[in-house]
Amino acid sequence: MVAQLVLVRHGESTANRDNEFTGWTDVPLTLKGQQQAKRVGEILVQKQLLFDKVHTSYLQRAITTANIVLFEMNQSWVPINKTWRLNERHYGALRGLNKDMARSKYGVEAVALWRRSYTDVPPLLEKVVSDRRYPNSIEPLGESLEMASQRMLPYWLEVVVPELRAGHNQLIVAHGSTLRALIKYLEKISDNDIDGLEIGNGEPIYYTFDEEFNMSERQYLESN
Amino acid sequence: MVAQLVLVRHGESTANRDNEFTGWTDVPLTLKGQQQAKRVGEILVQKQLLFDKVHTSYLQRAITTANIVLFEMNQSWVPINKTWRLNERHYGALRGLNKDMARSKYGVEAVALWRRSYTDVPPLLEKVVSDRRYPNSIEPLGESLEMASQRMLPYWLEVVVPELRAGHNQLIVAHGSTLRALIKYLEKISDNDIDGLEIGNGEPIYYTFDEEFNMSERQYLESN
Repeated sequence: MVAQLVLVRHGESTANRDNEFTGWTDVPLTLKGQQQAKRVGEILVQKQLLFDKVHTSYLQRAITTANIVLFEMNQSWVPINKTWRLNERHYGALRGLNKDMARSKYGVEAVALWRRSYTDVPPLLEKVVSDRRYPNSIEPLGESLEMASQRMLPYWLEVVVPELRAGHNQLIVAHGSTLRALIKYLEKISDNDIDGLEIGNGEPIYYTFDEEFNMSERQYLESN
Repeated sequence: MVAQLVLVRHGESTANRDNEFTGWTDVPLTLKGQQQAKRVGEILVQKQLLFDKVHTSYLQRAITTANIVLFEMNQSWVPINKTWRLNERHYGALRGLNKDMARSKYGVEAVALWRRSYTDVPPLLEKVVSDRRYPNSIEPLGESLEMASQRMLPYWLEVVVPELRAGHNQLIVAHGSTLRALIKYLEKISDNDIDGLEIGNGEPIYYTFDEEFNMSERQYLESN
């Protein structure tokens, strides 16, 4: 049975608008971000997609995007599973910092590496920000893209893949870094080449998998 | 451990506004209904409630209300479980019918009985409306309040009660009839007396349960 998968990065957040590092900081969508989410719903309606399950992070910019997309598709009843494993990469001490300020403070080259390399770890937080949604000390002090990938992939393999193998269509609404990590894995992109991959807010990416669970199609969806 | 439970009927829907029987018909909130949901969130924030789980129906007027309430409380990450068992009572052939039109067609007394008695069954649909969210022929042709109660209570007993017993705070966002049935059960209201119970859109009802799982408090919440 062929299964369909759609990946969506959340709509524009207040931190995207203000050019700030965000990570696990829980910022809302802007009005533009809400409109982008609505547009994603319209595009998926045109594609006549019927989802069986939705996966999103513990961060409201992704959750609100997922809610708007489902509402627009008249599929609000579809179950949404929320998990910290799909959270944005944790940006450590950079969280909340304007990107230009970060460049002044740490240098252009260091910031570029932290943003784009696979293995570089940003400056760490000194201690975890207490938050009841993250029990058992799962909250990191900062992550490279590789570290984010390592805590995201078990969710993909153990939760999403079995659904797709059963022929159930899945929607993942997540973040720039966790989607880059997932696409790197799906499309076997090398550690060096991953810095070229940029995912826009609210631009859905569509995959199909054949009966042997080989990826049979990849499409950047645009509206008619 | 003491557990808190809040029951909320969804905000005003287009069918509430137009004075129509709705049941399993999937109508959206009005703008007023969205504002009522936001107000519920504000009231629960004042009450400093922290939820561990949310339960709602497969109908978007309840789901959207739950989404707005959680967003307003900055608790969007809390898991929401959606179930057909919390759906509004199925109003059979009355669905979509204006209540005054129904009175002209069937008589004032019959309509009053269908709306308020515990056991009277409304005129049945001739066949189920096909809808992929209701597989395995679970969709009824019409229900009395008693029938709705019988398919709602297993969810309460098997899913919600164990959470409360474990001390986890629960929010249920549902519908006039399923909440009436639940309150009838919780407060041991007789079949005859249930016709006096009316639950307003977006008026939260708050319960606590003590260590022996006896109801220790019931409160109609209002804002300060």
